[in-house]
Amino acid sequence: MTSGLSQLTEKHRPTLDAALAAVRSRAYWSPYPEHPKAYGEQGSVPGSLGAAEGQAAFEALRGKRFELDQPGTDGWAGAEVSPYGPELGITYPHADADVLLPALRAAMPAWREAGPEARAVVCLEILARINARTHEFAQAVMHTSGQAFMMAFQAGGPHAQDRGLEAVAYAYAEQTRTPGAADWSKPQGKREPLELRKEFTAVPRGVSLLIGCNTFPTWNGYPGLFASLATGNAVLVKPHPRAVLPLALTVRVAREVLREAGFSPDLVALAAERDGEGIAKTLAVRPEVRIVDYTGGTAFGEWLEANARQAQVFTEKAGVNTVVVDSTDDYKGLLSNLAFSLSLYSGQMCTTPQNLLIPRGGIDTDAGHKSYDEVVADLARAVDGLLGDEARAHALLGAIVNDQVKERIEAAGRTGEVALASRSLTHPDFPGATVRTPVIVKLDGAKPDAEAAYFSECFGPVSFAVAVDSTADAVELLRRTVREKGAMTVGAYTTSAEAERLVEQACLEECAQLSLNLTGGVYVNQTAAFSDFHGSGGNPAANAALCDGAFVASRFRTVEVRRPA
Amino acid sequence: MTSGLSQLTEKHRPTLDAALAAVRSRAYWSPYPEHPKAYGEQGSVPGSLGAAEGQAAFEALRGKRFELDQPGTDGWAGAEVSPYGPELGITYPHADADVLLPALRAAMPAWREAGPEARAVVCLEILARINARTHEFAQAVMHTSGQAFMMAFQAGGPHAQDRGLEAVAYAYAEQTRTPGAADWSKPQGKREPLELRKEFTAVPRGVSLLIGCNTFPTWNGYPGLFASLATGNAVLVKPHPRAVLPLALTVRVAREVLREAGFSPDLVALAAERDGEGIAKTLAVRPEVRIVDYTGGTAFGEWLEANARQAQVFTEKAGVNTVVVDSTDDYKGLLSNLAFSLSLYSGQMCTTPQNLLIPRGGIDTDAGHKSYDEVVADLARAVDGLLGDEARAHALLGAIVNDQVKERIEAAGRTGEVALASRSLTHPDFPGATVRTPVIVKLDGAKPDAEAAYFSECFGPVSFAVAVDSTADAVELLRRTVREKGAMTVGAYTTSAEAERLVEQACLEECAQLSLNLTGGVYVNQTAAFSDFHGSGGNPAANAALCDGAFVASRFRTVEVRRPA
Repeated sequence: MTSGLSQLTEKHRPTLDAALAAVRSRAYWSPYPEHPKAYGEQGSVPGSLGAAEGQAAFEALRGKRFELDQPGTDGWAGAEVSPYGPELGITYPHADADVLLPALRAAMPAWREAGPEARAVVCLEILARINARTHEFAQAVMHTSGQAFMMAFQAGGPHAQDRGLEAVAYAYAEQTRTPGAADWSKPQGKREPLELRKEFTAVPRGVSLLIGCNTFPTWNGYPGLFASLATGNAVLVKPHPRAVLPLALTVRVAREVLREAGFSPDLVALAAERDGEGIAKTLAVRPEVRIVDYTGGTAFGEWLEANARQAQVFTEKAGVNTVVVDSTDDYKGLLSNLAFSLSLYSGQMCTTPQNLLIPRGGIDTDAGHKSYDEVVADLARAVDGLLGDEARAHALLGAIVNDQVKERIEAAGRTGEVALASRSLTHPDFPGATVRTPVIVKLDGAKPDAEAAYFSECFGPVSFAVAVDSTADAVELLRRTVREKGAMTVGAYTTSAEAERLVEQACLEECAQLSLNLTGGVYVNQTAAFSDFHGSGGNPAANAALCDGAFVASRFRTVEVRRPA
Repeated sequence: MTSGLSQLTEKHRPTLDAALAAVRSRAYWSPYPEHPKAYGEQGSVPGSLGAAEGQAAFEALRGKRFELDQPGTDGWAGAEVSPYGPELGITYPHADADVLLPALRAAMPAWREAGPEARAVVCLEILARINARTHEFAQAVMHTSGQAFMMAFQAGGPHAQDRGLEAVAYAYAEQTRTPGAADWSKPQGKREPLELRKEFTAVPRGVSLLIGCNTFPTWNGYPGLFASLATGNAVLVKPHPRAVLPLALTVRVAREVLREAGFSPDLVALAAERDGEGIAKTLAVRPEVRIVDYTGGTAFGEWLEANARQAQVFTEKAGVNTVVVDSTDDYKGLLSNLAFSLSLYSGQMCTTPQNLLIPRGGIDTDAGHKSYDEVVADLARAVDGLLGDEARAHALLGAIVNDQVKERIEAAGRTGEVALASRSLTHPDFPGATVRTPVIVKLDGAKPDAEAAYFSECFGPVSFAVAVDSTADAVELLRRTVREKGAMTVGAYTTSAEAERLVEQACLEECAQLSLNLTGGVYVNQTAAFSDFHGSGGNPAANAALCDGAFVASRFRTVEVRRPA
């Protein structure tokens, strides 16, 4: 176990430097292995939990109080039920905000004084210890989000850790753009120059509130958490009531590392809530809270933007993701790629395509011209094929996260002609899990009543194959969708330079991230930290992107002290 | 005359690089000379207007329409009266926003496509042409703000240009942190790596609205104007109705340069208004407007923050600036430095000290212990001495910008014992000018009714010598003032390491910029671009600092297009 800051610096500075280089080059890089076997078994990788140990660590948490020695605990709360069926039976400290928030504030001055590099390496140690427990986090993410194991492992583990590290790198770079001190000498002609010594200190905003989400508690939570912590703020973590455990584990590791490094553990604390308590609304407008990070529905996101006026508010809300299908030179690749994107985690990703815009006259492909009906039927067949093997289906789909998603699947089938019906599967290990395959519904984009279905987010394994008059028509609908509803992702398939130009222009002007002609092992709904931006921050789906300068720059301020030299 | 972009790049790239280096080192630097003689006379400096030519150019504008060939002009507006007396008699195009705003939007795609470097060098050409006309701008600033000539020349000219250039440098750096393109290759064990080509484009938010102020139309206007323009946005300039000319001249130069460089001049346009029209309120909530920069009163600043929700809103509002007087080893220097700070532009700067907190038991100095009464009397004498010479007084004071300031001077005298009464002076060249020397009022900080006077901004040449129990007491009042009222500047005089530590801690924790022991030719109310931050963005006086990463980072977004390699 490391303790001193200098040891932490020695251990983590090379990783920080590599992360700084990666965000500049945007080339592939990650320090956290994404293959489960990399974490060894029975101590074969020192300090790291293997699959069985991770599972055992998770099981040991169940049915108990999750102790955190944080101030202001006035009770216990928690009633998580795995989307796979079992109740977790874990309760977490419920906090008296009037005690906890002052403790967070009190922890900040020493953290500010430590400076950007010390904060960065402490954050990297937190991430390293989380990484070593990835197998335990994978279980926690799987049994709160309903993700299948491999996704819970990768997206909830190394990929989330990547996004956390990326935020630390941006935060460090931003804070060190201005030197710690400077000598200033202004010539005055024949007189002596004016001379000042200036000191510049990055100072935190205050308490940063993380409002976690149900589906990606760590992946969507780590960027804000680590960006705020690395810029000197204390972070209060308010998890989604159905996905507390992954963030509670995170808070526990963070507190342990902070204490060992000589800082107050109260720089990171948990705010669990009782059923229906809605504490996010109360906490978000507390004067101590100066930063809010939120992922979730549009209504509460907009409420936060309008009401948490004392804070910098970063939100990721709902959007409607579009794929424009114009033409392809790899029809088979198009079908398999899209089928995977629609199936992954039962479409419960903010990045899953929803509206597939297909010309009613069909498309040109390397397998000949395909009519609109053929494209939709072939896509339905591709999804069926992908999910025909039950084991593979479960490995991809995971479980439905809540009843609203289930209801949306039923409702979607009533909006148009069902090209692919959603099937219920029974999970071999978890018979209580709700498992559903995607539904694909055909809609005529020219019919005004169809818009009611496709022109709002239908979160879950629902996609609409919307027949449009032409690719130009599709691009116009794409523009309008991004402008009015927002989008986390846009995809397009085309062999036409002109169609490609139109889609690119639309994405540049409406500010959406575009993936073109993905036919292999990269999917429109996946982004890689250090290289891809998640969201643009420039359309209604999100007011921030993961991760860029704007995501970190306003989390701290620079205070200057100047005096005669 | 340059025209092609490559010539502009050749001409300005070294200046851009020097600016980028300066904001990193924070050492003294400026490309724009601050001495009036540097601009020559009668063409002795090619392309540059000398004093007489600048004056003549200004006079030639008076009593006429100020033509701007921008779309949507539906009338003429303008009724500026110089604080020195004369009516300017200039009218400006009044715009139909429904015509002008779409024209601004239409100008943006080509500007976006030009990329960060082209935008930066075009901005630098605009600044260079403004710089060459500094003598004309000095007249325009003097006769709208009421600043004395030398201040109008320097703060309205080279110092404002510095702040504009600084914003361009930050904008360029921010946009180029991400490369234009990257190759991404993710290893897949024994299989072929996943390979993507990624392109990254900085895209603008939309139309940026600059709401100008009366006292520093260029200095406070240029950072937002150039930050937005350099990040690809079109800028609509809505000047204060009493200070239109400096920004109208700016718009004219910008349009001329943009056109010559092959872009639409409609990237920068003017929105002048009729008396009492209040168009800022209408424009700020237009959906096309995605950025607002504002300097002015707190009430409208807060209205913008609450209502212009579709936009990024950058505000500089009112604050209460404090100087803590604890002790000094240069009593004479303290007095002369403070006297100058209180007198400059009749205290009509957002950075002028207002509350001088002095222990009631007096202070230790190199000239012996001085009682509270002695310190205040000596300061009054120092101001009197500084302004005893009429010519020097006029060179420092300038004119009172509006009747409200005059009324505040009268009212201040009724709040406590007047240690220094404000005098009226008659300007030798402009007998119509309202010229007032500062008033200093003694208040007892322990008396609750005194707080009504000193605990809110009293904009103008009014300062309060507040007697406090101790330096610790002063620091507590400083903290409370910054937290509740905001501050653009804090000053302190002390020889005690402990007092210095207390003040520094307060400024770091409450987020205010601190100047310590200024006794020479640097004043608490002046900041230098490329080195000093103006405001902190972390207390109620302003939500942004000039200039840092946060001031530019959210003015654009990065759109990624990725495709198989």
